[in-house]
Amino acid sequence: MDNTREIEALIELMARLPGLGPRSARRAVLALLKRRGQLMAPLAQAMATVALNARDCTVCGNIGTADICPICADPDRATGEICVVEDVADLWAMERTGAFKGRYHVLGGTLSALDGLGPDELGIPRLVRRVADEGICEVIMALNATVDGQTTAHYIADALTETTVQISSLAQGVPIGGELDYLDDGTIGAALRARRRL
Amino acid sequence: MDNTREIEALIELMARLPGLGPRSARRAVLALLKRRGQLMAPLAQAMATVALNARDCTVCGNIGTADICPICADPDRATGEICVVEDVADLWAMERTGAFKGRYHVLGGTLSALDGLGPDELGIPRLVRRVADEGICEVIMALNATVDGQTTAHYIADALTETTVQISSLAQGVPIGGELDYLDDGTIGAALRARRRL
Ligand SMILES: [Zn+2]
Ligand SMILES: [Zn+2]
Repeated sequence: MDNTREIEALIELMARLPGLGPRSARRAVLALLKRRGQLMAPLAQAMATVALNARDCTVCGNIGTADICPICADPDRATGEICVVEDVADLWAMERTGAFKGRYHVLGGTLSALDGLGPDELGIPRLVRRVADEGICEVIMALNATVDGQTTAHYIADALTETTVQISSLAQGVPIGGELDYLDDGTIGAALRARRRL
Repeated sequence: MDNTREIEALIELMARLPGLGPRSARRAVLALLKRRGQLMAPLAQAMATVALNARDCTVCGNIGTADICPICADPDRATGEICVVEDVADLWAMERTGAFKGRYHVLGGTLSALDGLGPDELGIPRLVRRVADEGICEVIMALNATVDGQTTAHYIADALTETTVQISSLAQGVPIGGELDYLDDGTIGAALRARRRL
């Protein structure tokens, strides 16, 4: 291939995005090259801005552009409910339903000795402290309906037994083995409304 | 959705890339957010560099980062052959085969009254001048095997009848209705070797 080095380097980086292989990365870069003023320059600028400013919320683990994410910073969301999710993608999926008005705890994974993910890595002690400090009355487990997700949910429920908080989990609507981020918004909303005590 | 404004803006721009819809753009941005140091910042930088430096080659229409693209600037490629392609993607596809050692003329489309693409927009007078000025002995039509592609190839052949240049076209291997950029490299190479006079 006889592209100039800079264009090759861009294609190689684009190919590392999920859902883009070498061929689709090439097509994407070509589309950008043809619209370098209207699309490529603004996209590069937007990406640089986010890369510079993005950070994990110190309270919940959501990704935003401030130390406290917009959800944690919003006083209208202090509803006494914390929704526990595995990943920021799951938080986004919950938010798209508009069905949940509380705050979140993003684990960043599930318990896994293999991946070196223990309670500390998932922020579970921090979650337990929040339950006491923020006067939380309900913790809603919105973990994936996988073995790892449910094992982690039960571990968290055990860690919270010394508090008086009510613990529930998303119930009907989440298919076995399914992942939240792939579900339609209506299904997630229904599962939230039909949540059951753990 | 409760992402911060900058992240939303980035997702919207990413969703305008070919092959990425709103959902896959979100997933791509999330993957970038999780690797903002190792991937997002370098990608933003690479994209900004290319957006700033990319330009159309004044000789052939290829996109590079200089006024003359690497292919036109390479003295080893002055073989007396010009390969005419519709699009930069097709030039890249030809280059991946490694089968062609000459230079290119990128039309940037096919003749289309509807799209306002006439001979001038496709640089056909410039191609005719190059044939004389560069001592070209063969013009190889590597246009898509579509009606528009073949109509344009014949128009170019007519425009070149006053020169003595030999005109050929990619022959076997290009399926009817097929587009070069989707073909495997071997097929394109075979079609090049088996080119026939037009
Ligand atoms: Zn937060
Ligand atoms: Zn050139």
